[in-house]
Amino acid sequence: MIAVLKPGTTPEQTDHLVQWLKNMNLDVHISQGREVTILGLIGDTSRVDMDLLGSLEIVESVKRVSEPFKQVNRKFHPQDSVIEVGDVKIGGGHFAIIAGPCSVETEDQIIEVAQSVKASGASILRGGAFKPRTSPYAFQGLGEDGLKLLLKAKQATGLPICTELMNLVHLDLFADVDIIQIGARNMQNFDLLKEVGKTKKPILLKRGLANTLEEWLMSAEYIMSEGNQNVILCERGIRTYETFTRNTLDLAAVPSLHALTHLPVLVDPSHATGKAWLVPPMAVAATAAGADGLMIEVHNDPAHALCDGAQSLSPEKFAEVSRKVQRIREALK
Amino acid sequence: MIAVLKPGTTPEQTDHLVQWLKNMNLDVHISQGREVTILGLIGDTSRVDMDLLGSLEIVESVKRVSEPFKQVNRKFHPQDSVIEVGDVKIGGGHFAIIAGPCSVETEDQIIEVAQSVKASGASILRGGAFKPRTSPYAFQGLGEDGLKLLLKAKQATGLPICTELMNLVHLDLFADVDIIQIGARNMQNFDLLKEVGKTKKPILLKRGLANTLEEWLMSAEYIMSEGNQNVILCERGIRTYETFTRNTLDLAAVPSLHALTHLPVLVDPSHATGKAWLVPPMAVAATAAGADGLMIEVHNDPAHALCDGAQSLSPEKFAEVSRKVQRIREALK
Amino acid sequence: MIAVLKPGTTPEQTDHLVQWLKNMNLDVHISQGREVTILGLIGDTSRVDMDLLGSLEIVESVKRVSEPFKQVNRKFHPQDSVIEVGDVKIGGGHFAIIAGPCSVETEDQIIEVAQSVKASGASILRGGAFKPRTSPYAFQGLGEDGLKLLLKAKQATGLPICTELMNLVHLDLFADVDIIQIGARNMQNFDLLKEVGKTKKPILLKRGLANTLEEWLMSAEYIMSEGNQNVILCERGIRTYETFTRNTLDLAAVPSLHALTHLPVLVDPSHATGKAWLVPPMAVAATAAGADGLMIEVHNDPAHALCDGAQSLSPEKFAEVSRKVQRIREALK
Amino acid sequence: MIAVLKPGTTPEQTDHLVQWLKNMNLDVHISQGREVTILGLIGDTSRVDMDLLGSLEIVESVKRVSEPFKQVNRKFHPQDSVIEVGDVKIGGGHFAIIAGPCSVETEDQIIEVAQSVKASGASILRGGAFKPRTSPYAFQGLGEDGLKLLLKAKQATGLPICTELMNLVHLDLFADVDIIQIGARNMQNFDLLKEVGKTKKPILLKRGLANTLEEWLMSAEYIMSEGNQNVILCERGIRTYETFTRNTLDLAAVPSLHALTHLPVLVDPSHATGKAWLVPPMAVAATAAGADGLMIEVHNDPAHALCDGAQSLSPEKFAEVSRKVQRIREALK
Repeated sequence: MIAVLKPGTTPEQTDHLVQWLKNMNLDVHISQGREVTILGLIGDTSRVDMDLLGSLEIVESVKRVSEPFKQVNRKFHPQDSVIEVGDVKIGGGHFAIIAGPCSVETEDQIIEVAQSVKASGASILRGGAFKPRTSPYAFQGLGEDGLKLLLKAKQATGLPICTELMNLVHLDLFADVDIIQIGARNMQNFDLLKEVGKTKKPILLKRGLANTLEEWLMSAEYIMSEGNQNVILCERGIRTYETFTRNTLDLAAVPSLHALTHLPVLVDPSHATGKAWLVPPMAVAATAAGADGLMIEVHNDPAHALCDGAQSLSPEKFAEVSRKVQRIREALK
Repeated sequence: MIAVLKPGTTPEQTDHLVQWLKNMNLDVHISQGREVTILGLIGDTSRVDMDLLGSLEIVESVKRVSEPFKQVNRKFHPQDSVIEVGDVKIGGGHFAIIAGPCSVETEDQIIEVAQSVKASGASILRGGAFKPRTSPYAFQGLGEDGLKLLLKAKQATGLPICTELMNLVHLDLFADVDIIQIGARNMQNFDLLKEVGKTKKPILLKRGLANTLEEWLMSAEYIMSEGNQNVILCERGIRTYETFTRNTLDLAAVPSLHALTHLPVLVDPSHATGKAWLVPPMAVAATAAGADGLMIEVHNDPAHALCDGAQSLSPEKFAEVSRKVQRIREALK
Repeated sequence: MIAVLKPGTTPEQTDHLVQWLKNMNLDVHISQGREVTILGLIGDTSRVDMDLLGSLEIVESVKRVSEPFKQVNRKFHPQDSVIEVGDVKIGGGHFAIIAGPCSVETEDQIIEVAQSVKASGASILRGGAFKPRTSPYAFQGLGEDGLKLLLKAKQATGLPICTELMNLVHLDLFADVDIIQIGARNMQNFDLLKEVGKTKKPILLKRGLANTLEEWLMSAEYIMSEGNQNVILCERGIRTYETFTRNTLDLAAVPSLHALTHLPVLVDPSHATGKAWLVPPMAVAATAAGADGLMIEVHNDPAHALCDGAQSLSPEKFAEVSRKVQRIREALK
Repeated sequence: MIAVLKPGTTPEQTDHLVQWLKNMNLDVHISQGREVTILGLIGDTSRVDMDLLGSLEIVESVKRVSEPFKQVNRKFHPQDSVIEVGDVKIGGGHFAIIAGPCSVETEDQIIEVAQSVKASGASILRGGAFKPRTSPYAFQGLGEDGLKLLLKAKQATGLPICTELMNLVHLDLFADVDIIQIGARNMQNFDLLKEVGKTKKPILLKRGLANTLEEWLMSAEYIMSEGNQNVILCERGIRTYETFTRNTLDLAAVPSLHALTHLPVLVDPSHATGKAWLVPPMAVAATAAGADGLMIEVHNDPAHALCDGAQSLSPEKFAEVSRKVQRIREALK
């Protein structure tokens, strides 16, 4: 970490600061220039509060030289992590599609969708049981009953299941869930992250609505620092001023994350765009950008004209996307 | 709620949609124009999923006519809510300053700050015991011990205390806390909101990093819908592209919220700007904008030159701000 | 256009507003609901100031039913526009790569790059002569001399050239330029748009730093409304809070624009990301998203180690990208 | 300027870079740490392209130590600049309100508004003659005729006038205009900035829709670097994800700019919020934040109920705001 001191800082002030830093077990390398003094901090700087340091009166600016994340950092773990979910592998050249309905509704629905997406190339089933909703009056999901229906679909099809955990007291209910999803709104719910970090289950960590790559990786670090190495990142769009799409899908995050971390990176084009007709081109583009997999909403009722334009794809459209994604992966080999 | 159908929608499709809406216990008023058909939905539309409706193939756009929030809505509760915290009142012309250190560190520190801010016009003491930190390696606060120190400061000064709850399993520990703060990162931690909604304690709900006024009010609605009427909103800056300040303080939110809701609105200029020298002008501006109070970070160690530029004010600077705020309030009477 | 009136609006106020609207040559269709009154405005609503209308005291909200853009609108021009630049076609299935250096520096440089990118699949040469720079002290480009060097490169290679116009008084100098680029910072320089709208030259209109798709299309409409049908859109990233990349590349804009307009859409991954190593994956992803072409910065000095990490690709890396893009296009056929 | 080199950079690469920097007439101070090498660049670093430098393969990061702006910089000009507009002064304790209608429409209108705002405390008249409009089909202002009407109002009331210049070829028409406004959309129209920099007229430079404080100051630097010292900055809200207000008014920009520059800073609450009822609280808050003046839209037709809710204030409301602003200024003395 580098701290640049303001012109006019007195030697006493500098000494005072250096002493304070040394008390944090840091070595301090002082470089005295004509106009400015630069302090190079060496040692474990991950505990230094950059904001505090940068806001000191004598400090012009602070800059990290090394990233604050460790276990997620590719520098210390050059090979791609491969996360195993039953027989399915994600990362390191293994590509997986997680598909399923927004919410679990009935046994017939979830089993039907599961069979259909399995036939079209999905290897993991998704479905919401506990649903984060902006309004307290909106349908909040079937909860525990929804989990049971997901398990029936797992039994019927053999697909591993992925579903969202919102509340750490529900963790016991997720014993047979294969991938625990942490949603965008909980990306910085640090107590929840620590709790799932104590399990060994694969955790799918979605990017927060307005979080940086670094904050996202620090949240993954929370999980890993508790002992759970099985973290999967999932880009789902960020909030910007543009209102045509529900969010702005940040596909450059995919190769950026591949440079910064060894963890696999999925993309969810359904939540990112909010429009079913944008899911196919964005699924294909995400694959071309190097994503390790996709998370796609598929509904079960192709005959029901009403939903045809929603963010969920019909099984037919999903099958088509799946084929295109396959062609892209072959073209890039 | 208004749904505008696309040109070319067939009567069968329209009937299909109208039937679907009526099944949700809504009256539907159909207005057939030359080019477009408009459906007016009457009844409890707060349960209608606007995103789903808007994404249907035959729907051009959807617009709420009435706000989706109810209990927080000024339309149904025209008088200002006044929240009582011990002898202190907030809202409806009652102005309160909540002040104190970022983190509780020692008994001496917290009591000293408490005495100092009380003498300068603060009526409530703040201090972090459980701290949300981006990094798992950063100091996470003293936790339960921090709560005990806060209670000692309360006993010593008579000031009610306000501190952040991050984990619903900690709620019992907060029995003697006067105001429970829900931090920005947990603004949409819906299970936590429901849990504090079951208490009768005043809840200070900070705005999320990138949340709209409507989302914020819906989170307040989560608390009120569980029976707790004592909600205080606190603007603390939103995330934008500008990096000079830590966040962008949205002061227009203050009069906007006063129009939309009866709940009191505080402003936290310390977290909003991240720079101590910007706190005084922004505290004064927030007061001029009509805020019902302020939340200000004050540290206890005026001799410690190091922290003088941090986002926390020295007790002297705080006293000065407090006097200016008072003058502004008198000027606006 | 739909205007929803507030509950409590008197019949006199409604009449007053309806009369005002009729004076703008609009038909007004009044739909009187139980709680709200809805006005449907029929006719040429593109001249109505939505902001003014929406801000009237009696108006709850205003919503466009039809897009405000006309000539750029796919509804009125269902076939893809194909823009011809010499022998090169862009749009409607024709894909073009525009490549070249950030700035034109010397005759050798620009000719060398031109030959190299031509050999690797580029069909148009780019190069900055007039450069928009944040600082008045930064190199502002060679100006007119730069244009002359570009023309020499055109002569030497037969490649059409594309370069940026910043000042309408320079228009005469651009007589032999094949595509006039309007940069992001000038996307809403309306007088400049009108001026290039009076020519017949292809105009490459970059998206503004923080402009919506609708605003961008309205700027294209400015050009077309003056008689110039040859407009090419170019997505180059938008400004968000994320700082890892220079901008956030909005690839969902590509299929979104293809739905809204008949104009071709290019993508510039170089400016969008600001990092050379992110250009290849983003060029490939843009192609997969359906872009009609790419604009890529290529420098000429592969031996010059210094620039190897800049946003410009070396000729070798460009050739590699070009081959991958070709494979993606074949895979998607 | 500080450049941090990546671990593993070879001495040859470092030498190569140092040589390149020295060729730009910079002194380079090399500080060799255990893991990283830091280069301190001394001399006129305002010409160094930070983006290029930072994107080099061997460079980890680049940080300016000194601001890139010079003439606008308070460091080199500690006293507040006071801009004189006829008898009116702005800055350095002198406060001015610029008020008037959005667009100049008729002689009666503009004279009536001018008289009314003069009576209520405005010292400068504003009014749009050339109007930047998103749509080419929207009313574009009266143009030259509008300027003539403004001059009549100036003659009738003695108020100096302020109006927007969009096109550098119109500059001659502005000979009798007292303050030339450069609008938000032209903040980075560098050729226009240079052109007005060649005059001696006061220039009111609005902040761009999504521009940083630094970019804004660099645009002011463009004007000053051509010899015109009379620059006034005007904050008018920035674009964020929040849609309740038209823009997000960034009032922390006021004290921030006062620290960075000696130029006066005005605030325009009308464009910032887009709602007349938010103008009074935001005008008062801006004054409390330390603004050197305000720019407020006032319309002339208080009887015309239609416009009462628009972003323009009625003369009565304006008079009320003006009185409140006066009280705030006295309270802060």
